Parts: sequence; structure tokens; C-alpha cells
Amino acid sequence: RINGERLWDSLMEMARIGATEKGGVCRLALTDLDRQGRDLFVKWAKEAGCTITVDRMGNIFARREGRNPSLPPVMTGSHLDSQPTGGRFDGVYGVLAGLEVLRTLNDLNYETEAPVEVAVWTNEEGSRFAPAMVASGVFAGVFDLDYGLSRADLDGKTMGQELERIGYAGDQPVGKPVGAYFEAHIEQGPILEAEGKTIGIVTHAQGQRWYEVVLTGQEAHAGPTPMPIRRDALLGAAKIVQAVNKIGLDNAPVACATVGLMQVHPNSRNVIPGRVFFTIDLRHPDDDVLSKMDRELRAAIDEVVADGRLEAKVEQIFYYAPVPFEEGCVNAVRAATAAAGFSNRDIVSGAGHDACYLAKVAPTGMIFIPCIDGISHNEIEDAKPEWVAAGAEVLLGAMLERANA
Amino acid sequence: RINGERLWDSLMEMARIGATEKGGVCRLALTDLDRQGRDLFVKWAKEAGCTITVDRMGNIFARREGRNPSLPPVMTGSHLDSQPTGGRFDGVYGVLAGLEVLRTLNDLNYETEAPVEVAVWTNEEGSRFAPAMVASGVFAGVFDLDYGLSRADLDGKTMGQELERIGYAGDQPVGKPVGAYFEAHIEQGPILEAEGKTIGIVTHAQGQRWYEVVLTGQEAHAGPTPMPIRRDALLGAAKIVQAVNKIGLDNAPVACATVGLMQVHPNSRNVIPGRVFFTIDLRHPDDDVLSKMDRELRAAIDEVVADGRLEAKVEQIFYYAPVPFEEGCVNAVRAATAAAGFSNRDIVSGAGHDACYLAKVAPTGMIFIPCIDGISHNEIEDAKPEWVAAGAEVLLGAMLERANA
Ligand SMILES: NC(=O)NCCC(=O)O
Ligand SMILES: NC(=O)NCCC(=O)O
Repeated sequence: RINGERLWDSLMEMARIGATEKGGVCRLALTDLDRQGRDLFVKWAKEAGCTITVDRMGNIFARREGRNPSLPPVMTGSHLDSQPTGGRFDGVYGVLAGLEVLRTLNDLNYETEAPVEVAVWTNEEGSRFAPAMVASGVFAGVFDLDYGLSRADLDGKTMGQELERIGYAGDQPVGKPVGAYFEAHIEQGPILEAEGKTIGIVTHAQGQRWYEVVLTGQEAHAGPTPMPIRRDALLGAAKIVQAVNKIGLDNAPVACATVGLMQVHPNSRNVIPGRVFFTIDLRHPDDDVLSKMDRELRAAIDEVVADGRLEAKVEQIFYYAPVPFEEGCVNAVRAATAAAGFSNRDIVSGAGHDACYLAKVAPTGMIFIPCIDGISHNEIEDAKPEWVAAGAEVLLGAMLERANA
Repeated sequence: RINGERLWDSLMEMARIGATEKGGVCRLALTDLDRQGRDLFVKWAKEAGCTITVDRMGNIFARREGRNPSLPPVMTGSHLDSQPTGGRFDGVYGVLAGLEVLRTLNDLNYETEAPVEVAVWTNEEGSRFAPAMVASGVFAGVFDLDYGLSRADLDGKTMGQELERIGYAGDQPVGKPVGAYFEAHIEQGPILEAEGKTIGIVTHAQGQRWYEVVLTGQEAHAGPTPMPIRRDALLGAAKIVQAVNKIGLDNAPVACATVGLMQVHPNSRNVIPGRVFFTIDLRHPDDDVLSKMDRELRAAIDEVVADGRLEAKVEQIFYYAPVPFEEGCVNAVRAATAAAGFSNRDIVSGAGHDACYLAKVAPTGMIFIPCIDGISHNEIEDAKPEWVAAGAEVLLGAMLERANA
């Protein structure tokens, strides 16, 4: 049995790094705070007897040797980076639940057949650097290394530069054989809590398409410029924000469609905006519907610029089809949940996770626990200690099944 | 007659300070570049034999003594600050046309009865520090000094701090008797050029209301958060942007309604925006219609938040009623235009100007010249040398009429 109190204490200690006033965390990828979080994890993993390797994307692997070191490791993990106004569980829970599994194996002097590894994936959130899950994507061969290292934040700093700066540009090649991969995560949505279930057995993750849009009109004075001749880029963007929302609603109940980021230029009170940059995030568990949403989006943008006042540059910067997790791994999660007697249900992940890319190169499964009010990507994100412990217990069970198979 | 070439050369020399790649100017109020612009003006004014005083709002006055120093000065002026993507004429033209008047009087060894002064007003644009025309407003007693000095930019730096920093926190009290005030400015709209007129005789300026709005919803994950339960602040802001535009169109032909500035929080691609800050600028030459537009705006915002998902904080931060200029000064402009034989028409100013506040404490008139395509608050803002010279010629004539009256 895992030690729920130890896991909770580690979560709370990690949450001090980048703690915000409202009780959340701001630990953006590859900042000094991300480095501090990584250093603390590495310290803990070494104390647990692990060997540490870091690959060229800054992914960290903490390894507990198995009886048969030549077997590919059974791996778990998640990420330590957060949203600008993030919570204390998103990502870090999966990393520290993995660490708790290793600590528990140590307590029990338990030797696994295959090695066991805990991974910390770089820049999962996709907030400072887009897209999301960049480094697990490179690991899985979805992106090449140059693409990964050249992702830039809004100030133009690249992941490669920032990895060097914080000392996590490792020397290992990115990608290696993995026997099986499991990831524990908070649900980040309202379903488990609403239904009173402790464990979500994740069967799929929905597909995603991310876009960057630049709308260009013409800056002009807000006072003497008659309404009929304006070329107001923010007015166009406002129409597209509403169209995006409508696409989400029209493809109910499970579609999601969001504009999360917008920058207005020159952003001055008495200047008609001449240029607006914004992003769009479309999601659906059915790839055909996701394609239909893509067509609806493009038609909506075309309509907004149809009168020739504005010019639109639309780029899809991220796409992955809905991901089915591997039957054997899903069943391992199901069996571990049943063995521990936790209430549960099958669930589809609304968020992307590093597991979605790992699923391309290894048998993969995921374990969800509830979060309070389904709120995530928010400083008030919260979870109950018993949920946190339960997820780690299931993770231990599922990993042992695979590591001894 | 004024020296059009000398005036043009001075404009082009000043335009180097803060020059942008696209041929415009970025010289935000009380930045180092604003200081450089002020220093250059002071140098030129001293070379023209003027005495310089600076008041506590950083307004600069360059004085050419009259035969009767006890008479209140006949004043002209405008501003040297610009928009983030501003042009080479907005504001600076009125300052340097004033300087050209002084230089011409020197060339002619002409002694006026009343002293003549050229004023540089601090932060007219209202871009870095809102609202617009802060320092001429303090001069005219519309705002008190503490209000003026405490205006803060989006980083929290106040005008008082920044005046100290750049060395333009003067020692003179703000406000003094003014015999008459004239301001030359580009039209910033399309009317004069479209009608082929060289001079606009400005009879009024339209009224303005500026607002700051904070819409608050709740940040949540863009993936697992169902559309129906979202509290998306950017969606609400988008609806208000469209409502503002509709208010402008509904009160055609002369109403203007603009959202120029917007900041999205936390501004992350996969986070439903929890808070949006934005500004609204409403204008109309008829105060009753402007009040009606205010009511329409408040009703539109109420409607957007009616379902209780979002909370709106709406603050009107700036209001002035439409301004009629003084008949005698308007006639002085008219007479000087006729004497020089320039084509002309009466015109209402769509923009606010320091003259709008000066009109509260002194007889005031304004002179407009066309600008290319009516474009202002844009780096491509442009004007023809003959228009620039014509406006200064009219300014000289109008000022002499008053200074010798
Ligand atoms: N789990 C999580 O928040 N991932 C970020 C990527 C996404 O937006 O789905
Ligand atoms: N002239 C000018 O651009 N003034 C700025 C204030 C306004 O927006 O009217």
C-alpha cells in the first residue's frame, strides 16, 4: 500500500515553488521556477536510490532497476510545468504519484522484473510554448528534435535556449523503448465528482486542433474616423470568438471550442485596432466531427473577412486525432481499481496528456481522480487527499502487473 | 509669411525621435524619447530667444515677450507625445507651427503688443496614461493636480514619477491667464482632403465618454470543461465589442464607438479566460445623443451579464461635453484664412485636443489641415508640405490679430 500522507506532503512541498496568492501555482515551462521544481524532484528521486538521465528535450527519467535490466522499463510520469494561473495537482500529481510508487517499492524491498521509471516531460501545458506536450511528442517521434527545440514563447525565446539556460539540456537522445506507460492525473472536468466515483478508467482522449489567427485591418483614430469606413481588426476577432463558441455549442454535448489567448495591436484606447493575434482550440472525441468543426471554423472566418475590410491568416499549429488507450493497459488499471475496491467509471479525457503521445510508441493507460468542482487551469484547483492516495494505489497495482508480466 | 521649408525640416528632424520602421513615430508620454523631443523643442525655442518655464504637470511654455509684458499671452501649442504606432504630424505639428510663428516674428523683427507663447502639453494622447489631455485639463481646472500626477500606466508608473524621472517636473503652478489660445492640427479624418479644402475652420469638438470595463468569469480548462457550464469572460467581451460597434452605427452618421484596448487573463491558449479588461470610447457632437449612447452601452453590458455567469465592473473614466470654440477666435481663423486665400470649410473636430480644455479658461480657436486619406493614429499618417505651411500661415495671422488687439 502506498503512503498517502507522504505523497500529499510532497505535493504540498512542490506547490510552494511558484505558489500564487490565491493558493495556486505559476510554474511556467523552463523558467527558474520550473528549474527549482525539477531540482526538487531529482533530489527526491536520488534519495529514493534512482539513477537520473535527462534527454535533449529536457525530459527527466528517474530509474529504479529491475531484476532484468535489459527489459524496457515500465514507465509512469507527467509534467511539472503549470499554467500562468495553474493549480497544485495538474501534472505534478502524476509525477509525484510515480515517485510514491518507487518509495513504496523501496519500503517493501520489492524487486520488479522490469525496471521502473518516472518521467518528467518538458512543457506539457503548451502555455508558455505552443503546442502542448511538445517534448513527449518528440519522444514519440511525432515532432522532430529541431521542431521541439525551436518552439518559441511570445518573447521569441526558444525551448532550446531556455533548456540551456536552466541547465536541463540533457545529453541523451530523445526516445527509447518503453514496456508500458501509465499516467495518473486529475480529471480536470466535473464528471467523476458529480457521480461520486473515485477512479476514472481512461479509455480514450479526445482529438484536438489548435490554430493561430492574425486578423489585419487598419489602425485609425477612434474619433474622426467614420464607422462605415473602419477596418477594425478587433471587431472581426470578436465575431470569430462568437463563431468559435457557436461551433462548440452546435456540436454538443461533447465538443469544446475556445479562444484562450488574444493580443490586440497597438492596444491603445483611442486607436481602432489594426491587428489582432488570437488562438483557437477545438476538441472532439470523434475525428470526423473534429474535421467538421475545422470546416465550420474556416467558413466562419471566411464570412467575417468576406467584405474585404480585413485579411485573415489562419494556421493550424497542432492536431492529433482522438487517442484510444491500449486494451491491456486499460484492463490493468481496471483490475487494480477493482482489487482496491474503489468506485469507478470509464471516462474519456477532455485534456491532452503526455500519455496521448506515449500511446503511439508504447502500450499506454491512464488513471483519473476527481478534482473539486471539476475546476482546473485555475488557482483554486483542488483534490481530496483520499482521491490522491487512491490514484497512486491504482498506479502501483497497474505498474506492478506490467513490470512483473 | 512663414517659412514652410524651415517648418517642414523641423518636423522631419523631430520625427527622427522615436521613428518607427514603417515611417511613423512611437514617442509615448514621459518616456526617454518624449524627453528627447522636449529637449529638442526647448533648444530650438531658446535659439529663437524665448524664455522657458515648466509647470508641475510638465507643460512647457516658450515665451516671446510683447511690448506690454503685463498682458496675458496669446498662446498656441499642442503635444509632442504620440500613440504607440503614431504619425509624424499629430500634435507635433501644432507645436512646431507655433515655433515657426515665433521664428517668423523674429525674422521680421516684429514686436507684438501681448507676449506670445508656445505650449507643449503633457500626455495629450491618453495612450500611455488615460485619460487624454490630462495636463491641459489640470491647467484648465478640470482635473486637480493630484489627479493629474497620479494617473498611472498599465505597469503602475504614475505621471508624477515619470515627470521626475525625465526631469520635467517643473516648479511653476499649473494654470495662468491666457489672452487667447489657437491650436493648429491635422484633421485626422477624411473630410478636408475629400473636399479638396486646405483649411478647416474648427467650430466645435465632439463630446467624448471613455470607460474601463472588467468582466470576470472563471478560468477553467479548455478541454474537459463542458460548453454549457463555462463562464468565459472573453466571450462576454466579444459580445460587448459588437454591441459597441452597433451603438456607433445606430447613431450614424457622426457617432463613433470603439474598443481600442483589451487585456485577456490569464491569456493562455488552453484556458477559458477568467477575466478581461477593456476600454470603450464613445463620441458624438450632440451631448444628448452621447447620453443616449451611454444608456445604450450600459443596457448592452447588462444584457451580456444577465444570465449571471459574468460580473461586469464598468467605470466611466473620462467625459466632456461637446465644445464650442469662441466666436471671436473662430472669426480670427476665418479672416486669416481668407486673407491668405486658402480654400476652406467649417468643420467639427472628431478628436479631442488640448484646445478643448483651454476653451474653458480662454477664448480659443483651432485650425485644421488635411491629412492623406484621413488616416491618423497610424504610422502611415502623412500630410503635404503645402498644407503644413498653409496652417502655420493662418496660425500666424490669427495670433497676430489677437496679440495686437
Ligand atoms: N492536462 C493538461 O492540462 N494538458 C494541457 C494540454 C491540453 O490543453 O489538453
Ligand atoms: N488629437 C488626438 O489624437 N487626441 C487624442 C485624444 C482623442 O482620442 O481624441
